[in-house]
Amino acid sequence: MNTSAQGRLLLVPTPLDFGCASQAPIEDVLPLATLRAAAQTTHWITENAKSTRAFLKRVGEHQTLAVPLQQQTLTELPRVVHKKGDHQAGGFDAKPLLQAALQGHDVALVSEAGMPAVADPGSSVVRAAHDLGLQVLPLVGPVSLLLTLAASGLNGQNFAFVGYLPQDSIERATRLKQLESLALKTGQTQIWIETPYRNPAMFSAALQALQPNTRLAVASGLTLASASVQSRSVTAWKKAQGGPSGDTPAVYALGI
Amino acid sequence: MNTSAQGRLLLVPTPLDFGCASQAPIEDVLPLATLRAAAQTTHWITENAKSTRAFLKRVGEHQTLAVPLQQQTLTELPRVVHKKGDHQAGGFDAKPLLQAALQGHDVALVSEAGMPAVADPGSSVVRAAHDLGLQVLPLVGPVSLLLTLAASGLNGQNFAFVGYLPQDSIERATRLKQLESLALKTGQTQIWIETPYRNPAMFSAALQALQPNTRLAVASGLTLASASVQSRSVTAWKKAQGGPSGDTPAVYALGI
Repeated sequence: MNTSAQGRLLLVPTPLDFGCASQAPIEDVLPLATLRAAAQTTHWITENAKSTRAFLKRVGEHQTLAVPLQQQTLTELPRVVHKKGDHQAGGFDAKPLLQAALQGHDVALVSEAGMPAVADPGSSVVRAAHDLGLQVLPLVGPVSLLLTLAASGLNGQNFAFVGYLPQDSIERATRLKQLESLALKTGQTQIWIETPYRNPAMFSAALQALQPNTRLAVASGLTLASASVQSRSVTAWKKAQGGPSGDTPAVYALGI
Repeated sequence: MNTSAQGRLLLVPTPLDFGCASQAPIEDVLPLATLRAAAQTTHWITENAKSTRAFLKRVGEHQTLAVPLQQQTLTELPRVVHKKGDHQAGGFDAKPLLQAALQGHDVALVSEAGMPAVADPGSSVVRAAHDLGLQVLPLVGPVSLLLTLAASGLNGQNFAFVGYLPQDSIERATRLKQLESLALKTGQTQIWIETPYRNPAMFSAALQALQPNTRLAVASGLTLASASVQSRSVTAWKKAQGGPSGDTPAVYALGI
């Protein structure tokens, strides 16, 4: 608990190995200040309570938890945020979730993997914290799309993350060409993500839709022993074959 | 040194407190896998050799360095990359910098603060590594613009980082309005950075140029005890007064 009158909203990143068969020691991917803050927090706003309990169990193996897992307060984000994102019209008012902070407890926002509110729900909670005058403290941890960008060799001084592309094959091809055109015109690297089982379809769609000289990077298994980031021109990809597997999430980036 | 025939290119993030009067323990902001990798690496490609030596000294206080600092090989990126970025026409060929990797040594790319090749030079080196068939391994550490985005309460599922804005006041106002218009039209959060001494001018330019309901976030001192992220509408900023100081770098974000 914070000693000031109001608690803070902590943004606690989690390892990227959520749901993976093998997991690295948590201190390999989260620095000490993050582990300590997580261990001292007793109130959580989470994408999924079950995965947060698993996370706290791992934190507890490294740092003593302030109170036992069973006595922690975990509140899940409402389903509408999962489905529609935080910023759709009629978005929900997250202020009631922050009652504990108004009463002096630090409250942590957490997602299943990586940084909360980045490529994941939760920004409504952050916004509500600002509107309530709470201090918002982001903690250091892994962010898959930034690791991908750094390792892509693409322009990291001007880039955009655009989330998921359309699932329909015609709309997806149109969107890929649109992102490529933007990258060619402005030099802005374009980053997107895909769920595991759609990776093979996404990858072959990209090779079909993009121009031969466009550079395409594909990352998977980041922070795991199996981590892979490959980056080459569309022409070189076609010669190299390969591509992402259908069993881990992947991050994609294209640019010039 | 790596045991395979070729070394890897490691992307080693550094603390964000470069040049700051007070510095946190390095293990508070870099996880163990990053510290271990840094301690085991003997060949460095760096934005600035002096700051990398200071970084290695801090790493060495936590993990034994594979060879003493004096025997490490540090190569600075050419000045043209600092000045013009990696992706200007006639960009330099970084392959010669990676000779040591071809001879079996892991080589690390590092910037003065944060993640190399993200909002910092170095992507030509990453690109050259891919072209040489080297494995590229990004390591976990702090990235100021992502910490800002997470803590802004702005849309983190669609965002762009655009680097620095123009210095000329008329061009800067035009660019601010252009970024705002893009955010209003597409929902895409726009993030940019500014050097310390220009913060007061940037902040008042933003309050003048942007519409009353646009939300503006300003972050400074991230990962330091003095960390601050504030996020409110332009109208609320005008009432609240305040704003970033002229002695630490700041990250800005706007959105709806």
